[in-house]
Amino acid sequence: MTTYDDATSPVTLAGRRAQEAAAGLATLPRAVKDDALRAVADALEARTAEIVAANAGDVRRAEEAGTAASVVDRLTLTADRVRAIAADVRHVVTLPDPVGEVVRGSTLPNGIDLRQVRVPLGVVGIVYEARPNVTVDAAALCLKSGNAVLLRGSSSAKESNTALVAVLRDAVAAAGLPADAVQLVPGDTHDSVRELMRARGLVDVLIPRGGAALIRRTVEESTVPVIETGTGNCHVYVDADADLDAAVDILVNAKAQRPSVCNSAETVLVHRDIAAAFLPRALDALAEAQVTVHGDARVRALAEDTKATVVEATDEDWATEYLSYDLAAAVVDSLDDAVAHIRRWSSGHTEAIITTSQAAARRFTQRVDSTTVAVNASTRFTDGGAFGFGAEIGISTQKLHARGPMGLPELTSTKYVLTGDGHIR
Amino acid sequence: MTTYDDATSPVTLAGRRAQEAAAGLATLPRAVKDDALRAVADALEARTAEIVAANAGDVRRAEEAGTAASVVDRLTLTADRVRAIAADVRHVVTLPDPVGEVVRGSTLPNGIDLRQVRVPLGVVGIVYEARPNVTVDAAALCLKSGNAVLLRGSSSAKESNTALVAVLRDAVAAAGLPADAVQLVPGDTHDSVRELMRARGLVDVLIPRGGAALIRRTVEESTVPVIETGTGNCHVYVDADADLDAAVDILVNAKAQRPSVCNSAETVLVHRDIAAAFLPRALDALAEAQVTVHGDARVRALAEDTKATVVEATDEDWATEYLSYDLAAAVVDSLDDAVAHIRRWSSGHTEAIITTSQAAARRFTQRVDSTTVAVNASTRFTDGGAFGFGAEIGISTQKLHARGPMGLPELTSTKYVLTGDGHIR
Repeated sequence: MTTYDDATSPVTLAGRRAQEAAAGLATLPRAVKDDALRAVADALEARTAEIVAANAGDVRRAEEAGTAASVVDRLTLTADRVRAIAADVRHVVTLPDPVGEVVRGSTLPNGIDLRQVRVPLGVVGIVYEARPNVTVDAAALCLKSGNAVLLRGSSSAKESNTALVAVLRDAVAAAGLPADAVQLVPGDTHDSVRELMRARGLVDVLIPRGGAALIRRTVEESTVPVIETGTGNCHVYVDADADLDAAVDILVNAKAQRPSVCNSAETVLVHRDIAAAFLPRALDALAEAQVTVHGDARVRALAEDTKATVVEATDEDWATEYLSYDLAAAVVDSLDDAVAHIRRWSSGHTEAIITTSQAAARRFTQRVDSTTVAVNASTRFTDGGAFGFGAEIGISTQKLHARGPMGLPELTSTKYVLTGDGHIR
Repeated sequence: MTTYDDATSPVTLAGRRAQEAAAGLATLPRAVKDDALRAVADALEARTAEIVAANAGDVRRAEEAGTAASVVDRLTLTADRVRAIAADVRHVVTLPDPVGEVVRGSTLPNGIDLRQVRVPLGVVGIVYEARPNVTVDAAALCLKSGNAVLLRGSSSAKESNTALVAVLRDAVAAAGLPADAVQLVPGDTHDSVRELMRARGLVDVLIPRGGAALIRRTVEESTVPVIETGTGNCHVYVDADADLDAAVDILVNAKAQRPSVCNSAETVLVHRDIAAAFLPRALDALAEAQVTVHGDARVRALAEDTKATVVEATDEDWATEYLSYDLAAAVVDSLDDAVAHIRRWSSGHTEAIITTSQAAARRFTQRVDSTTVAVNASTRFTDGGAFGFGAEIGISTQKLHARGPMGLPELTSTKYVLTGDGHIR
């Protein structure tokens, strides 16, 4: 039932077209969707020159605006990168179709057959920042799961996204599917984001992918149900009974292997009984990995004979998702204190414990309430690819609907089908 | 991470206590929770006189205010009804504990063990109208699923709810659990509802149970994730190939067996090829069941020689959840027209098709996008009890998290537990 009705808004009009398209997509068999995805991959390769040329305009504008080199790099599409994006689409073809899966079923005592069946969500809105590969990834995953998608990329990637969506829509239409299964939400301004957030009844779920500010704004202003993704203030707790070699390796990996991603570690908590043995070694290893440590007094006291740069930590450090070569560090008196610190400061993404103690591992995994708890493994494994989901639309850090890496099944809802022969109550 | 921080609000303070309690509840084994539930049932019976006396105050005020007899009846607690409520609590004891269930698990190619485990949601807020039995039902289901509950009942049931929650808290505390696992949200005014709706970070999910206005307000104003429940504008479609006896029986049952509930039918759609054979019989049967029909022109034309009262239907009738002995009725030209009518007007709760045609049943179930699609069965079966879930916290009419009747598993989230032995990426 439509509750949003501003017929003059381009977002409303796009939403209505998406709803129409979604009704058609919902009943398509897998083979038809897979053919369309293959057509998309082929078209991306065939029209690479056009895509790269459009992207060059975005890259030029970003460089002229003095955008950071790392951001420009993420924005840039080369022929190789377009090929990689097309390969990702072909990989989605290989994944099982979640739609139609019978989640549970039984024959009720009265003889009625009950089946709970996966169905598409309907219209999925994605609000995302610079990286244009998200445009294709998100569209491919939505298409495979029978959903229409409304894409609202950032204005910095406008030319790239326009070119990519044109290719997607042409390919989808050529495969006999409604082109409006994939739409770029019009408008450069924040107004179109706001309209998307208020399009309850037209948009079934909104998934923000990007920085904390974008996610917070979406959560607070949206009347459309939101899946909160990707804020990762992740912790590594080094227990009194840790294997120190493993602890150093995991900590350095969790922090420094790719600091810009949400599953990198931002704080290390060290049990006091092992602090003197662990921290000097860890601080040297972190220093070698170019990491700046923000330590509490006990950490700083143990840093004196190391190569590490340790600055004083404040409460802000415990709260911060650095996404950089920075790491907060504290010594805790017990496992329970580590859990309490995590409960207070974590964003609920991923926390790891390094321990040889079965009791400690069990207590930590039971008491930490995050999407993922890792025992003797790096926080960096929280990822749809690593989990074997084949693809990922984002990592949900909320408790409703989906928690943790979201694959194709998380882009579906269910419906119950009851079959009787004249049953009444 | 707490994002709501008005420490002067009684709702905030209650939310913080609930969060504390939830942390303790989350790791309790089933036996401990079941013991507490048994203690609750015993206490309800032992303190029946106190509960009935408190309820008498609410009933007196309702009668003085001229409240409808049916509403007063739903408000009233007798010793028998308290015994029935206690029996419902003992039934919850028999249900499996969803917490700790391994939803999926595998060993990843790198040797890490991955398990997805059910965990409680945390703090569940319930906003509900007059019926005081909801106080106990909701508390029992939340307790069993390891959640703390914030109950916001209506002011018309204030004395009853206060007495019931006192009994619940005493029993829970006597069983060694935190009393704050069950709290009545203070305040008679709408302010406390608003505060509950804005307590994001303290309350994990809000479930409104009551009329359409309450649900709409919660959905629109809440920043806490909401599960929309219970609005049921349900349809019965009588196909060209229907068995007429079954169709009459199902229609009368769906409409009149209990018109005040959300899974009762509000509109019948009849295929034109069968209208002349079906409608006169159906209208007579509906007349006998005291149902007033709101018909379109084609329905009215076929009503002439029947005992039925048929008034003219307008668009408002298609949109209305009567919850009374009223039924909207229209003749449609095809199954697809019935589906289109349902897509336009339904609240997405339950729709039934009456047909002997396998093709029609298949097309209807695939194309109707509601929580439940019934084939040759009454809409009245959409219910946690009827589905064999043992209990029900509400019927979700949204697509995210849970859709349809919600039992204990729907009151949980999940977390992933990764176990490695020093794994890094």
